[in-house]
Amino acid sequence: MAEEDPVTTNPAHYRTIFENEFVRVLEYGDEPGESTTPHVHPNSVMVTLTGFQRRLRTDAGAREVDIPANQAVWLPAQRHAGDNIGQSATHTIFVELKGDAAGVVDDRVLGPSI
Amino acid sequence: MAEEDPVTTNPAHYRTIFENEFVRVLEYGDEPGESTTPHVHPNSVMVTLTGFQRRLRTDAGAREVDIPANQAVWLPAQRHAGDNIGQSATHTIFVELKGDAAGVVDDRVLGPSI
Repeated sequence: MAEEDPVTTNPAHYRTIFENEFVRVLEYGDEPGESTTPHVHPNSVMVTLTGFQRRLRTDAGAREVDIPANQAVWLPAQRHAGDNIGQSATHTIFVELKGDAAGVVDDRVLGPSI
Repeated sequence: MAEEDPVTTNPAHYRTIFENEFVRVLEYGDEPGESTTPHVHPNSVMVTLTGFQRRLRTDAGAREVDIPANQAVWLPAQRHAGDNIGQSATHTIFVELKGDAAGVVDDRVLGPSI
């Protein structure tokens, strides 16, 4: 997935803040109206530090998600791009799992399990 | 570790908000001056939704930690009790790892890796 790693594809938005053999922790930030290009997430727990109003897109379709601040949600392994369709900046933590726990990208999955 | 699971030992402070085969996600909350009794954490990523001023204790000693809000830190598997020694309520998310990734409690370890 190297070429679709969000730290590589969207370095203005994603940065690694911690990594060991079990997890990689990313911090995500953007402003209203900003978008990401297609990238891959392994199985992750996403923690919203701000509210999160977002359109997630794949080649197959799109889904809008609206999550309050201070939520922890499961994000199954997936490929997507996203747009901040809210009125406020987004600040989110991704705890990415490694090894077997990273899962396999399923193109039928889009967005968190909520 | 069942008898030292913080959801069991300190249900007023810890609750499970998500669980699957790879992770269990806990939410922690307390008020200034409140304490927990001894409990065990597997390897976890801790995300601070508020600042976090805390004395962590084991039979062997104590350590004070002071972490700002919105940080994600590695918490190696450990046994401890804790006191909120700050002036504000604490709200924290723990992403606990399962299986081999859960690690083994090391009584020489106390607090997050910061």
